[in-house]
Amino acid sequence: MAKRYLDKLPLQVALDQLHEEFKNFRAETEIIAVDEAAGRITAQAVKANRSAPDFYASAMDGIAVRAKETADASSRNPVLLKKGVQAVAVDTGNPIPEGFNAVIKIEEVNEVDEDYYKIEKSVAVWNHVRSIGESVVKGNLILTVGHKIRDFDLGALLEAGITEVEVYKKPVVTIIPTGDELVKPVKELQKGELVEFNSTMVKSALRKWGAEVKITDIIVDNKKLIKKEFKKAIKESQLVIILSGSSAGRKDFTRDILKSEGRILFHGVNIMPGKPILAAKVANKPVIALPGYPISALLDNYLFVRELVYLMQGQKAAEFDQQQVEVKRKINSDIGLEEFLRVNLIAKNDDQELLTAVPLKRGSSAMESMVKADAILRISENKEGLAPGDKAPAILLKSKAEIKKDLLLIGSHDLSLDLIRNEIAKRGLDFRLKLQTVGSMAGLTALRRGESHLAGAHLLDIESGEYNISYLKRFFKNKKMALINLVEREQGFYLKKGNPKNIKSIADLKNNDLNFVNRQRGAGTRVLLDYLLKKEGIDSSQINGYNKEEFTHIAAAAAVGRGSADAALGIRAAAAVIGVDFLTVAEERYDLIVEAAMLEDHRIKYLIKILRDKKVREEIKNLGGYRTTDSGSLKILDL
Amino acid sequence: MAKRYLDKLPLQVALDQLHEEFKNFRAETEIIAVDEAAGRITAQAVKANRSAPDFYASAMDGIAVRAKETADASSRNPVLLKKGVQAVAVDTGNPIPEGFNAVIKIEEVNEVDEDYYKIEKSVAVWNHVRSIGESVVKGNLILTVGHKIRDFDLGALLEAGITEVEVYKKPVVTIIPTGDELVKPVKELQKGELVEFNSTMVKSALRKWGAEVKITDIIVDNKKLIKKEFKKAIKESQLVIILSGSSAGRKDFTRDILKSEGRILFHGVNIMPGKPILAAKVANKPVIALPGYPISALLDNYLFVRELVYLMQGQKAAEFDQQQVEVKRKINSDIGLEEFLRVNLIAKNDDQELLTAVPLKRGSSAMESMVKADAILRISENKEGLAPGDKAPAILLKSKAEIKKDLLLIGSHDLSLDLIRNEIAKRGLDFRLKLQTVGSMAGLTALRRGESHLAGAHLLDIESGEYNISYLKRFFKNKKMALINLVEREQGFYLKKGNPKNIKSIADLKNNDLNFVNRQRGAGTRVLLDYLLKKEGIDSSQINGYNKEEFTHIAAAAAVGRGSADAALGIRAAAAVIGVDFLTVAEERYDLIVEAAMLEDHRIKYLIKILRDKKVREEIKNLGGYRTTDSGSLKILDL
Repeated sequence: MAKRYLDKLPLQVALDQLHEEFKNFRAETEIIAVDEAAGRITAQAVKANRSAPDFYASAMDGIAVRAKETADASSRNPVLLKKGVQAVAVDTGNPIPEGFNAVIKIEEVNEVDEDYYKIEKSVAVWNHVRSIGESVVKGNLILTVGHKIRDFDLGALLEAGITEVEVYKKPVVTIIPTGDELVKPVKELQKGELVEFNSTMVKSALRKWGAEVKITDIIVDNKKLIKKEFKKAIKESQLVIILSGSSAGRKDFTRDILKSEGRILFHGVNIMPGKPILAAKVANKPVIALPGYPISALLDNYLFVRELVYLMQGQKAAEFDQQQVEVKRKINSDIGLEEFLRVNLIAKNDDQELLTAVPLKRGSSAMESMVKADAILRISENKEGLAPGDKAPAILLKSKAEIKKDLLLIGSHDLSLDLIRNEIAKRGLDFRLKLQTVGSMAGLTALRRGESHLAGAHLLDIESGEYNISYLKRFFKNKKMALINLVEREQGFYLKKGNPKNIKSIADLKNNDLNFVNRQRGAGTRVLLDYLLKKEGIDSSQINGYNKEEFTHIAAAAAVGRGSADAALGIRAAAAVIGVDFLTVAEERYDLIVEAAMLEDHRIKYLIKILRDKKVREEIKNLGGYRTTDSGSLKILDL
Repeated sequence: MAKRYLDKLPLQVALDQLHEEFKNFRAETEIIAVDEAAGRITAQAVKANRSAPDFYASAMDGIAVRAKETADASSRNPVLLKKGVQAVAVDTGNPIPEGFNAVIKIEEVNEVDEDYYKIEKSVAVWNHVRSIGESVVKGNLILTVGHKIRDFDLGALLEAGITEVEVYKKPVVTIIPTGDELVKPVKELQKGELVEFNSTMVKSALRKWGAEVKITDIIVDNKKLIKKEFKKAIKESQLVIILSGSSAGRKDFTRDILKSEGRILFHGVNIMPGKPILAAKVANKPVIALPGYPISALLDNYLFVRELVYLMQGQKAAEFDQQQVEVKRKINSDIGLEEFLRVNLIAKNDDQELLTAVPLKRGSSAMESMVKADAILRISENKEGLAPGDKAPAILLKSKAEIKKDLLLIGSHDLSLDLIRNEIAKRGLDFRLKLQTVGSMAGLTALRRGESHLAGAHLLDIESGEYNISYLKRFFKNKKMALINLVEREQGFYLKKGNPKNIKSIADLKNNDLNFVNRQRGAGTRVLLDYLLKKEGIDSSQINGYNKEEFTHIAAAAAVGRGSADAALGIRAAAAVIGVDFLTVAEERYDLIVEAAMLEDHRIKYLIKILRDKKVREEIKNLGGYRTTDSGSLKILDL
């Protein structure tokens, strides 16, 4: 089972190779109506067919006059102009009658009677007269070749007498999804089935870049069938994308097929995720096999396929909106591999320009973290990770202006936070609440580092039985901090339906026949478990599964729901979502933590307002296991 | 003929009023397939229907094992695992068989024989096993309401078991173009006709923002007919736009109609262009009448209508990509009026971040300048213009990265420059050549100010008969400059077909019966004319039309072609474009001027390469009246 060869080219080398190979490869062209040309790319230079205006035209609503007949006019010595002879009424855009050479605007004209206008000011020759070609000039180049047509370009073209334009045809791309385990998007899945959604993501991106996209049926892992589909696709399209056939596993036939049909350009690039990309040239056309992991496929699509689709339309792809950002924690990365990390970005109070990057969950299959990301942080292949204070480039997924307005909350997971996030979005406010769920302790650490605006924590002080305060004393010495109560909520056991293992208390967890699943270190729920175990005099080694960690209440409940675990500790609301039994063990307090100075921030003020809103409190209660009587209450601590 | 009332509200006041009036106005919603949802906006929060994976899955191609059975493995002490019993082959994504709890990746496994695998390393529990919910977690909020769906959002939705999503319907907008003088886009126009193209520009922008757009026939200036069309439109759409009915001229009925059908919100905003916008509320829907001048209509559409279209879809319009830029010349502007000026932007060599803005032609109908613009400079209503060194915000129309790569040439107009611009675009280089045609002298002034990379000039030294050099000595004292020859070209008279006024020489211009048209002050062609007149002892006052100025060769030729002038001086190539007779008067040299240090710039190097290209030279010659034997030759001057 030796690993097949991957080239592992540096990214730029691979991109250059692809560019060199296909730099003259163009889609065909077609002539289309200007009316339909927005967003298309010119295949020929476009010159103006006529000037506009192509006559001397009035630039105002008013009267056309001969300038010299107005020469003596003043308020003391008004001049009368005979209608139709010395003055002709004109609207904006009307031609100046032959022999006339200036326009007086309507506001400066008095109508004396049916025959005469009166004016009190002289005008210069060509006053308010539009020159020939003032807007567009016949013969001038309006658009170069390779120009992406914008809305106002359409106006210039039509005014210049151009009603049709030659553009590149939309390149036709065929996507072939392959894999035994894949099924089309459906609501219910059998165990072991995976939804094939990479094709939808890739298609949507390709369409944005100007391509016309076909997706074939999902082809099972059968070399003959894949080859047959591929040969059809390469005939009918300018570019073929094979999905999840680029790694080096047991059933990856793509490489063999492409080798026999054409030439492999490279297989494997020094990036993470996205390493096992495969590029080939078949029938002089590009073929790209993308990795199966969604984030890998996404990234390679943006890095490689995007360039090709633009190239076929005679354009360079726009550069990514990339910015230098700072990190405030150590981030590991392998040397020799360029890493692309999903991150949130946050503007610091003192420097709104330099954004701080806060890594989201790693892994090439975490779609939620992709949706949550503000940017993709790049860690150079020459670096063994980043240290606090280091800067690195990040590809922005949102505008910097938008990012600077957002609030970032990092902390423990609670279902009411999703509700509040949506409430803020619904009210059309000028900011959004973003959420990273990492556990209470990690939330406090992030806040201390300046990686977030808010932390969310439910940390029990084992000595005092009080929540959060003793931890804040430790984390934020000499600072003035504020606690904003989010909720009080029930913690308890997630149990299989009917509680088959008959768990009634903490002590029942000591059952060797029982599979427990824990929360990650630093999670408030784990602190609570440790507290309960200690109280009962139980050692963690007595709990089978104490070391298996889940990162959210829902994931813990889901492990029970799926049958992989018999019990887990977590909040009641998640039991309702997943549909498992719940046994209450404790009530705890969940607070949001901010620097006290932030209480003046309009976003925090609004957040508190929402927490005190009756309707919102009611909705939170309806999630199950919540008390909201204290939600939005404030405690300010001088630490 | 008194002017009707315009409110002249400050921009922000008008925007706030519009927002307040329609903040709860939403398009209806519809449920669509996720597959078709890219770019649409959620009308409901979307929560995950399932976790993914919702079973423990292999994260690698390899074998599933029980971790404790690998505990003793090392290279000295390899462990054999019985296939099917102690180890099961799994591909990425496959479920981990019940009872197994780790995966060893394929590269680290040796296949001993049909029955056994050999491993040389132990693995930890849960190694390469994907947790339940690693990618998405059931019940988690995936998208808030009011979220514009991106390509990767589609992936997250499908993976989370969501196949349909509730989004806002595309708001239906009806555009009613009105005006007696307007005709649909056609190739040939009658005198006095204007092409109606505002509707096309506005429609294209609205579609980009998510609307569905209908355009009615052009309605003539008849109150009854406009009213009839409007009443139909307001019934069938969420928003109605009336084109060119917002000013206060003789035939502008829009205000009366809207007043009788509903309520005028405001009429007139303190901006330039775009001042006479009219906003109304009819049947609880917004109605906007845009001004007739294209740039005014464009700007008001971006400032006002865009906000409304987003609002109807529950979104805030993204903020404009606005940057502080510097100006290097005095720019006048009326106090009490916020001005929006089309500008080119250029990155300075010493500070690539602060861009310099260089104004393009003013006027609300100059479409070519709109196409050429990089940005729209905003001059606050509180400022009486800008002085050199002042900073002001500019709305970028291109990315900053793109702008920084471009070359900007400001100077005299020559047709070969368009050809070269297109040649650079055609070759797919990483820069574009941008052109502002302003005359030779103004080009040198701009270069000296640091507003351009290159000047283009053909300035005759009346004493020495030499071109450009004596002017450079004056403009660039103590600097090292380079002259790059563009072309040598024929200058002469544009004459009506058949030369009816029988013009044979400069002296024939003294005919009082003759209409001459001149070029603007500072134009090389005007310098040439003055030289020729002086040589013949003719005073400019003897030339009828000496003070009528055109700004390009083509405009001058067009004035003759249209019959408005009998003669003008200019280059031969323009005569061919317009179709007028041409009488050669002189041959002159046209040079590009750069700072000598710029010769090292790869863009300038490439430009010179193009000028020396045989095929390009041939194409320039084919324009008529050009010699290119010296094109691309260099002269370096220590001034």
